[in-house]
Amino acid sequence: MDGSHWLSMRPVAEKLAQNGHKVVVLTAESSLSMNGSDLYTALTYSISYSKEDLVSRLEMFGSDHFTPSYFPGVTITMYNNMQEVFRIYGDVCKSLLSNAELIQNLKDEKFDALMTDPFSLCGTILAEYLDMPTVMFLRGMPCSFDYISGQCPTPLSYVPKLFTTFTDHMTFIQRLQNVFVSLFDSVLFDILYSPYAKLATEFLKRDVSVMDLYRRASIWLLTYDFVFEFPKPIIPNMVFIGGINCANRQLLNQVKMKLVNSSGEHGFVVFSLGSMVSEIPMDKAMDIAEAFRSIPQTVIWRYTGKVPSNLGSNTHLVKWLPQNDLLAHPKARAFITHAGSHGIYEGICNAVPMVMLPLFGDQMDNAKRIESRGAGVTLNVLDMTPEDLINALDSVINKPSYKENIQRLSALHLDRPIHPLDLAVHWVEFVMRHKGAPHLRPAAHDLNWIQYHSLDVFAFLLAVLVTTFFISFKCCTYTCRRCCGRKSRPKSKSKKE
Amino acid sequence: MDGSHWLSMRPVAEKLAQNGHKVVVLTAESSLSMNGSDLYTALTYSISYSKEDLVSRLEMFGSDHFTPSYFPGVTITMYNNMQEVFRIYGDVCKSLLSNAELIQNLKDEKFDALMTDPFSLCGTILAEYLDMPTVMFLRGMPCSFDYISGQCPTPLSYVPKLFTTFTDHMTFIQRLQNVFVSLFDSVLFDILYSPYAKLATEFLKRDVSVMDLYRRASIWLLTYDFVFEFPKPIIPNMVFIGGINCANRQLLNQVKMKLVNSSGEHGFVVFSLGSMVSEIPMDKAMDIAEAFRSIPQTVIWRYTGKVPSNLGSNTHLVKWLPQNDLLAHPKARAFITHAGSHGIYEGICNAVPMVMLPLFGDQMDNAKRIESRGAGVTLNVLDMTPEDLINALDSVINKPSYKENIQRLSALHLDRPIHPLDLAVHWVEFVMRHKGAPHLRPAAHDLNWIQYHSLDVFAFLLAVLVTTFFISFKCCTYTCRRCCGRKSRPKSKSKKE
Repeated sequence: MDGSHWLSMRPVAEKLAQNGHKVVVLTAESSLSMNGSDLYTALTYSISYSKEDLVSRLEMFGSDHFTPSYFPGVTITMYNNMQEVFRIYGDVCKSLLSNAELIQNLKDEKFDALMTDPFSLCGTILAEYLDMPTVMFLRGMPCSFDYISGQCPTPLSYVPKLFTTFTDHMTFIQRLQNVFVSLFDSVLFDILYSPYAKLATEFLKRDVSVMDLYRRASIWLLTYDFVFEFPKPIIPNMVFIGGINCANRQLLNQVKMKLVNSSGEHGFVVFSLGSMVSEIPMDKAMDIAEAFRSIPQTVIWRYTGKVPSNLGSNTHLVKWLPQNDLLAHPKARAFITHAGSHGIYEGICNAVPMVMLPLFGDQMDNAKRIESRGAGVTLNVLDMTPEDLINALDSVINKPSYKENIQRLSALHLDRPIHPLDLAVHWVEFVMRHKGAPHLRPAAHDLNWIQYHSLDVFAFLLAVLVTTFFISFKCCTYTCRRCCGRKSRPKSKSKKE
Repeated sequence: MDGSHWLSMRPVAEKLAQNGHKVVVLTAESSLSMNGSDLYTALTYSISYSKEDLVSRLEMFGSDHFTPSYFPGVTITMYNNMQEVFRIYGDVCKSLLSNAELIQNLKDEKFDALMTDPFSLCGTILAEYLDMPTVMFLRGMPCSFDYISGQCPTPLSYVPKLFTTFTDHMTFIQRLQNVFVSLFDSVLFDILYSPYAKLATEFLKRDVSVMDLYRRASIWLLTYDFVFEFPKPIIPNMVFIGGINCANRQLLNQVKMKLVNSSGEHGFVVFSLGSMVSEIPMDKAMDIAEAFRSIPQTVIWRYTGKVPSNLGSNTHLVKWLPQNDLLAHPKARAFITHAGSHGIYEGICNAVPMVMLPLFGDQMDNAKRIESRGAGVTLNVLDMTPEDLINALDSVINKPSYKENIQRLSALHLDRPIHPLDLAVHWVEFVMRHKGAPHLRPAAHDLNWIQYHSLDVFAFLLAVLVTTFFISFKCCTYTCRRCCGRKSRPKSKSKKE
């Protein structure tokens, strides 16, 4: 997996290499963010997309979300974008698996383990082919498939489905909607992942289902933390490493340091819409610039588009910003974010309250989680006026509750017995040392759906009950008939008489 | 909780004290194993039992299990013993709660947290009264009440109930039995815990249920590890600290060291039936001694009864043995144990294969778990002949698979990112620092049974379905009647004609 998915994985790969392991990272030639490293070996394979292709497609996805659209248009756009992403990843996977020389090289290496983001099935197909224990590394999967394939119960009554923006306290109507959404899970999953199943069957030369492939996971490393996610049942081979990305901390360079230090008593605000959106339509950019010029804080805004004409002197546009390092500065007052999970964790780690402008994917849900904890305000980037943004910033900066809540979340999040990076590395090494972790695998994997839900047992009990009832009824009827018969016989006699 | 339950808790209390906390341990005057310590303050309260009383009752429980008995006698004995244990703990609890001076002292102290074994509800009642965040410390509760009150799903299809001795791979008949046992859970739980509910209601001067009290748990510290327990769903506020008791390691004294070093190439066998059984009937002791004199290993046997006349020169009787330290010695070849969870973990930590003679409580289940992993042999202490014991010892000592399996379990168990003692201390301190851990509490606690299982949602959907079907049916019937009516009218006319 490329893009932001890789950003959390990289420190694990690097730490493993520092621990003395040989780490090989498989990288598509036109990768967005998987640059080489001195620590690990990058094995590249050619794909049919150029980097420019990928960037322009991503930018298109980003700009799609700035076009006003309502139901069902917005859902169709989301669905089409998702399909397109899966098509691209499918093509990339095909290129990898058809590279016979590379595959043979990998086979010869006899690796101890494979770490992969299961969002794309490609790594898992490769692990099956090379018969390697697998560590899944993920933020989450579409349709809760991580939980389904891991055999982890997820009661629909308090575990909200992704994209619903519900909390764990749902009204009756919301619970109804949650059940409805779950009914479409397997349909959507089939649409998205069935091309992979075809690919896997061709490559492995035998029939395999997507579920079979995911079931081989030894450990699920989930970038979750329950200060952010709602608590729900888990299984023993799930390991929670939310906030792992906060480990990447460096000193600010001189230019940035001068900028933030000069922000005075009001401090500064950090604004980024993530790696996929660095440009936005000019009218929106002008609205935002308008809001920024009215606030006393300095603003550092990641923006590569045309400079808005109304840009205030307190607003500094940058092509790239060291987000985590800026948020760690004591003068950081607020973080305006698209609510990607990386950004959210950086906001939590550094205890900076957030104004969230979610655009797509899990961002609406992420924003809802932070909002429900009183640590941020969500705005609709399409509808918002400059006043909305000014008010939201004023709230999170000047109302003490927002700062108190994010500080509370931050304190809970950082109070852990072991750093998530060390935890992740431990479990990868565990899988390497013990060739998997079968002792953590629930026996539920060996049951079919009927057995798992004890339906055969309940059907049997029901059958026994019905049979008992039927026999008792028949006995009673028979006895009654005999008794009544005896009594009635004289009557009939008398009738005859 | 006294006895073996306290043995695992003590290191946590001591480590907390070493970390600079003030630790107060509430101890009944006639405690079995809760001796004072330089590290913590022991606050004692008087109870109506003398230590001799308690010891003689315990010995009676132990000897009960050497009297041959079959169903239903054995179940009735087990039930009566359980009732008796709960009666004693209830009496002890009454003594504590009625000690007004002590309770006032505790109130004045304003503690940060309370750690308690929920097997007795007493600590939880006290926590409710003093409004303290609570850490539960346990091996498990009767009737899976730890899982039920923690709102943790436990699918009956692969999570065997305690006392069934089933594994996580059950046949249809076993799954049927598992469901049956679960049906009696709440009945048995009510019988055992309802006196506590009465006591709590009197003490707190308001109606409370046992469930309400247990639900206040911030963290469940479970002395579980999945090399021993079968993997099953868990919840985020469950922390697994199985093997915490292995931390207590000391050098063997000179006498013991000389004994084990003199055992020669065949090494030695450790034999203990736990703290509750130090004497056994003479015929059984002679059978065991007979077996021991036929094996080449030295045997160290914890036994306080009359010396069997046929005791071999290789068998050494001791009043007490440093079990964990002896098992850690490289010459330890086998461990004959009653399969209490402490002993099992010491066997696992030190990779010593086991011959298990389970007597009561969870011991049959523990033995089954180790047996199912191929790391030990279970014998029925009542039926076994000297030959059975000799054969079992021969197997675990000389068949390589037993040693290999226990070594594999040991390697998995010891390969952890943090020691269970440090983990336990971290979570107690976490609860102290943050006044609980509400962010780990599943929202399931705020739902009733119908809502939790989405029965209202499904009932609504069914109602909609039935109504739709009914209306469609009525419409069809009406339409048909109209259509047929038109056609049939002429007929009726013709009839009239």
